[in-house]
Amino acid sequence: MMNYPSIENIQSALRLISPFVHRTPVITSELLNQMFQCQLFFKCENMQKAGAFKYRGATHAILCLTEAEKRKGVATHSSGNHAAALAKAASLSGIPAYIVMPKNAPKVKIEAVRAYCGIITFCEPTLQARELELQKVIEKTGAVLVHPYDNFNVVCGQGTACLEIAEQMEVPDIVMAPVGGGGLLSGTAISAKNIWPNVRVIGAEPFNANDACESFKNKKLIPVQNPSTIADGLRTSLSPFTYSIISNFVDDILPCSEKAIVDAMALIFQYLKVVIEPSSAVPLACIMENRDKFKGKKVAIILSGGNVDLANLPFKTN
Amino acid sequence: MMNYPSIENIQSALRLISPFVHRTPVITSELLNQMFQCQLFFKCENMQKAGAFKYRGATHAILCLTEAEKRKGVATHSSGNHAAALAKAASLSGIPAYIVMPKNAPKVKIEAVRAYCGIITFCEPTLQARELELQKVIEKTGAVLVHPYDNFNVVCGQGTACLEIAEQMEVPDIVMAPVGGGGLLSGTAISAKNIWPNVRVIGAEPFNANDACESFKNKKLIPVQNPSTIADGLRTSLSPFTYSIISNFVDDILPCSEKAIVDAMALIFQYLKVVIEPSSAVPLACIMENRDKFKGKKVAIILSGGNVDLANLPFKTN
Repeated sequence: MMNYPSIENIQSALRLISPFVHRTPVITSELLNQMFQCQLFFKCENMQKAGAFKYRGATHAILCLTEAEKRKGVATHSSGNHAAALAKAASLSGIPAYIVMPKNAPKVKIEAVRAYCGIITFCEPTLQARELELQKVIEKTGAVLVHPYDNFNVVCGQGTACLEIAEQMEVPDIVMAPVGGGGLLSGTAISAKNIWPNVRVIGAEPFNANDACESFKNKKLIPVQNPSTIADGLRTSLSPFTYSIISNFVDDILPCSEKAIVDAMALIFQYLKVVIEPSSAVPLACIMENRDKFKGKKVAIILSGGNVDLANLPFKTN
Repeated sequence: MMNYPSIENIQSALRLISPFVHRTPVITSELLNQMFQCQLFFKCENMQKAGAFKYRGATHAILCLTEAEKRKGVATHSSGNHAAALAKAASLSGIPAYIVMPKNAPKVKIEAVRAYCGIITFCEPTLQARELELQKVIEKTGAVLVHPYDNFNVVCGQGTACLEIAEQMEVPDIVMAPVGGGGLLSGTAISAKNIWPNVRVIGAEPFNANDACESFKNKKLIPVQNPSTIADGLRTSLSPFTYSIISNFVDDILPCSEKAIVDAMALIFQYLKVVIEPSSAVPLACIMENRDKFKGKKVAIILSGGNVDLANLPFKTN
């Protein structure tokens, strides 16, 4: 039996990180509600510091370090948002952050890590290469690994967004988060199930990177190799830790097409007036392709991040 | 002596419209604060219903109509946001909205008016042509004119955004709003000066449409003819009503270049993660070109609207 974060752990994380993170707004659009025949509430973690929910988990993990650990610094591998978040949180604490990034990570995310003084090592874009390279970096520096999702304190931090949602809207019928490595969905599910006993928690995943969907259906962890999806934040696979939490606390995981991701992204820019990266559009994309499951429901959706290359918006070429 | 809205009029407007408008968030960015060496607080009226602060004034004007007036409907001329706002507010009240639009109005704004069932008449893109065509429409329909800014109840509505700001941030040193016809700046100035006796209220205007700047400096109303600026919401000139309020309640009006507008727009997309139209970027553009005036200050800025053609973002071509 794994040691899952409790709601008390997540509440404690929120108290710790609150002075350092944005309490992001929850926004709505009558036109989107009409379009999808349900009531949608969007939690804007795209407007979180460093542009993604990842700043919650990274800040919490660093605040939980001992002074001796802080002196050595932190290290991680990440395709982008966790990297930038950890680099920013570390630089505010005056400690070094060693970041292993796949060499195909979006330029905008690489630049963000650089802006926050993260020390970058590039590697091949496979989970194996990332883990191997990270191991080397840690051996050399003695830095503490802060894994992007396979980490108790990180999952506690990610769960705090849902605690805020509880104070910002009426009781939802459904809570949705995108699922890549599963850190956000894990934290969200623990929070949601404890706050609202009757809520359904649904993960949203690109069909092209559907390891969480497949693992959930087959009741065993099935990682995916080098998936090809525009949702660059969701190319990672669940870890044993997040898989275990998700299989215990999540009600369903839905897939969506690449086209739906782009269409949902355009709708969010146009009607909610917020800048999101493709991963943030995945829950709405799943609603678009599974309308009946959501009809008449109150749905809370976490917009996970806003770090997108504005010179290459995918819906511009239409 | 003109009859200006009082703070009580604006407070009453906020009570009336509150059930129908979004209480939009106020957001901040540490990176922008560092960049400009001041503390910037952005009031997101780009996320207001119908995508702009104009929905406040239009809703208030319609709620103030008699039943007999409502039966005839409302009419206006507008390059876009007031048109969409009035059409939406009217359709929710079940009354017709007759909209005169210049034929060079942005496509996205014309489509918005259509989506809200506004009845459009196109005209030449001059103030004279707009007013002439509107007069014809009113004679034919008996609709009540709801002018986009030369209207007491509209200015009261626009002033409500600043009342909300007062509950969302600490006391600012400076409050800024863009100025086109002057409705937002007028309402904002009356609110701000009543709430914070020591605040400076600064209007922000494209240099290419600097009628408010020139009128303010020369102490008389000097309209501008067919100005050419990317800030399509600010091509109109002050009316005697808004000029009079502005000359009594506003401390300064600053101009900015077209380049600064585009640069500020890109910064707001990138760091605040919100979608804005060029007019919303004008206050930040003025700060960019007048940095010393803002150093060390707390500055509240109203992001006026978010109705922009996402397929033609001006900073995409860089």
